[in-house]
Amino acid sequence: MTFSLPIALDAMGGDKAPDSVVHGARLALKYFPNLRYTFYGNKEVVAPLIHRHKLDEIASIHHTDVSIGAQEKPSAALRRGKYSSMRLALEAVERGEASACVSSGNTGAFMAMAKLVLKTLPGILRPAITATMPARTRPVVLLDMGANIDCTAEYLVQFALMGEAYAKVVLGMENPTIGLLNVGEEDIKGHEELKLAHQMLRGITGSLAYHGFVEGNDIFEGTTDVVVTDGFTGNVALKTAEGTSRLFYATVKQAIEKSFWAKIGYLLARSAIKMALRKFDPRKYNGAMLLGLNGIAIKSHGGADAKSFANAIRVAATMVQENINQRIISELNQNPMSSPAAAAAVSG
Amino acid sequence: MTFSLPIALDAMGGDKAPDSVVHGARLALKYFPNLRYTFYGNKEVVAPLIHRHKLDEIASIHHTDVSIGAQEKPSAALRRGKYSSMRLALEAVERGEASACVSSGNTGAFMAMAKLVLKTLPGILRPAITATMPARTRPVVLLDMGANIDCTAEYLVQFALMGEAYAKVVLGMENPTIGLLNVGEEDIKGHEELKLAHQMLRGITGSLAYHGFVEGNDIFEGTTDVVVTDGFTGNVALKTAEGTSRLFYATVKQAIEKSFWAKIGYLLARSAIKMALRKFDPRKYNGAMLLGLNGIAIKSHGGADAKSFANAIRVAATMVQENINQRIISELNQNPMSSPAAAAAVSG
Repeated sequence: MTFSLPIALDAMGGDKAPDSVVHGARLALKYFPNLRYTFYGNKEVVAPLIHRHKLDEIASIHHTDVSIGAQEKPSAALRRGKYSSMRLALEAVERGEASACVSSGNTGAFMAMAKLVLKTLPGILRPAITATMPARTRPVVLLDMGANIDCTAEYLVQFALMGEAYAKVVLGMENPTIGLLNVGEEDIKGHEELKLAHQMLRGITGSLAYHGFVEGNDIFEGTTDVVVTDGFTGNVALKTAEGTSRLFYATVKQAIEKSFWAKIGYLLARSAIKMALRKFDPRKYNGAMLLGLNGIAIKSHGGADAKSFANAIRVAATMVQENINQRIISELNQNPMSSPAAAAAVSG
Repeated sequence: MTFSLPIALDAMGGDKAPDSVVHGARLALKYFPNLRYTFYGNKEVVAPLIHRHKLDEIASIHHTDVSIGAQEKPSAALRRGKYSSMRLALEAVERGEASACVSSGNTGAFMAMAKLVLKTLPGILRPAITATMPARTRPVVLLDMGANIDCTAEYLVQFALMGEAYAKVVLGMENPTIGLLNVGEEDIKGHEELKLAHQMLRGITGSLAYHGFVEGNDIFEGTTDVVVTDGFTGNVALKTAEGTSRLFYATVKQAIEKSFWAKIGYLLARSAIKMALRKFDPRKYNGAMLLGLNGIAIKSHGGADAKSFANAIRVAATMVQENINQRIISELNQNPMSSPAAAAAVSG
C-alpha cells in the first residue's frame, strides 16, 4: 500500500478557477502519483470537471456555496467567509484531514484566514510569504514577500532560519547562504531593526551560513541562496523585477516585429531564446508558502493556469514529504537566537 | 555676448576620473555650447587632459591634492575632506562662483557634504536623490533613491511636489502624474506614514495630479510620471531593476552564443534589438539630482564614462537654465501642504 498525500484544494479561488484547479490537480499527479484531493467549492461545477479530468477515483468534493472575492478586504472575508471554500480547505489541514492546502484566491484573505485557523509554529512570531525565483545560476528564495509590512529584528532573524530550512527542503541546497537586504553592504547602513538583525545573525552560534547585507541587484545575481527582507520591501522588489522583465521583453519583441530582417533573424534564434527564457517562466515558480504556520498552506498566483497550479500543488506535496515544519523547528533549536537586547549589548 | 553657464566639476571623483570628467565636459558642449568649467583636482594630471580635449579657452583648474576615496565613510570624508576636490566644487556653488556642480565620487560623502555646504531650500525638510529612468512609453522620475532611509509623511509629500517640478523641468511634462509606492492600491495598505502621506496628497488643494498608490510593477509600466518612495525602498527597487535587466540580457546573450542558427538569427535581428535597447542605455540617464538643496548638485554614477558624464552635465545645465529651485519653491507655495495632524483629523 502506498503512502497517500491528501491535499485540500480551494476550487473556487483564482481568475481561472475552478477549471485551472481541477486540471492542475490532474497535471500534478505527474510529480506525485500518490496525491489525493478534496475540492472545496460548488459541487455542480466541480463534479463534471473532476470527471472530465479523470480524477474520480482519487478526488472528493466538499460542497459550499460561499467563496471569497478577489477584491474583498481581509476583514470582510474573515467575517463573511466562515463556510467559504478557502476557509474550509484551511480547516481540513488544521484538523489533520489534509496534509496541506492550496488556494489561488485573494492573498490578503488567505493570509488572514491561514493565521487564524492554523496559528504559528511554536516559537515563531510571524509567518512569512516565501517564494522561489530564478536567478543567475540557481534559484533564490525570497522572504517575506508581503505578509508583514513592519518587521522587528527578531522577525527577520526567524525569517533567515525559516528561509534556510526552506532552501534545504525545496531546492535541496546543502548549506544555503543567507543575505539580509539593505541599501549597502556596510554595517552602518539601513534601519535600526535591520542593523540589529544583522548583529543577531552574526551572533548565531549554529551552522547558519549568514553572508551579511546584500543589495537589490544581488537578489537575481545569486549572491546568496536566500534573501531576507520585510514584507513591504520584498513585495516592492518582486513586483519591480516582474515589471522590469515585462518591459524588457515587450521592447525586444516590438523591435523584432517592426523589422523584416529582425523577424527572419528571430525565427532562427527563437528556439534558443525560448529555451533560455524558459527558466524565467513564472509558472515554474508558482506556489508561495506561508512559512512559519502550524500547517502547510500554499498561495498560488491569482492568475494561475492549470500548469501553474500544478506547480503550487507540487510545492505543497514537497513540503509535506520533506517535513518542512519539523525542519524549521529543528533549525530554530540548532541556532538559538540571541535576544535583541543581548545583541545590542554585545555590539554596544 | 552669450549668457554663460559656469559649472564646477569634481575632476577626481569616479572610477574613470579624471579622463571621463574632462572628456565628458567636452562632449557636453554639444548640448550647451555656453558651458564654462572649473575643474577641481590635481593640476598636473588635469591640465594635459584639458589641453588634449581642447577645453583651454573655457576651462580653469582649481588645484587640490585631496580627493575622497570611493570606500570612505561619509563621516571620515567630512572630517578629512575640507579641501577635497568634491567639497571645493560644492563650495563654488554655495559662493555663487558656479551655477551647479557635478561629481562621480562617493555617493554617501557627496550627499553629506552637499547637505552641509548647500543646506536645504527654505521650507524643505530633506533633500531627495532624484533619478530619471526609462519606462514603457516615456521616462519616469523616481525619488528618493537613497538619501533618506526613514521618511515621514511630510517628507514624502514634499518629495511629490519636488518630483513634479523636476518632471516639468527636466522632461518637459505639462501635468505629470504622481504615484506613491506601496504594496497595494487600497487605502488600507502600507506603513502609517505612507497612509498619512496618501491622505495629505489627496488633500492638496493646488494643481498636483496625484494618482494614488502604485506598486513595484507600475514603476516601469509608466502608470505615473513620478514615483515617490522612501530612500530605502527606492534604492532597493532601482537596484533590483538593474539586476533583473542584467540577468535577462545575459541569459538571452548566452543562449544565442550557444546556438549556430541563433547566432545567424541574431546577426539579422541585431540592429533592431540594439536600437530598441538603446532607450535603456543607463548612460542616457546618468545624473541624479540632490533635489531640495539650495544649490544644484548632481551625482553622476561612480562608473560613469565620458558619454555618461556628459549627460550628468547636461542634467546640471538644464536645472540651471530652467531654474529648478525657483520652480520647486513655487510648487510648494501653490500646493500648500496640510499638516499631518490636519490630514489625520480630516480622515478621522
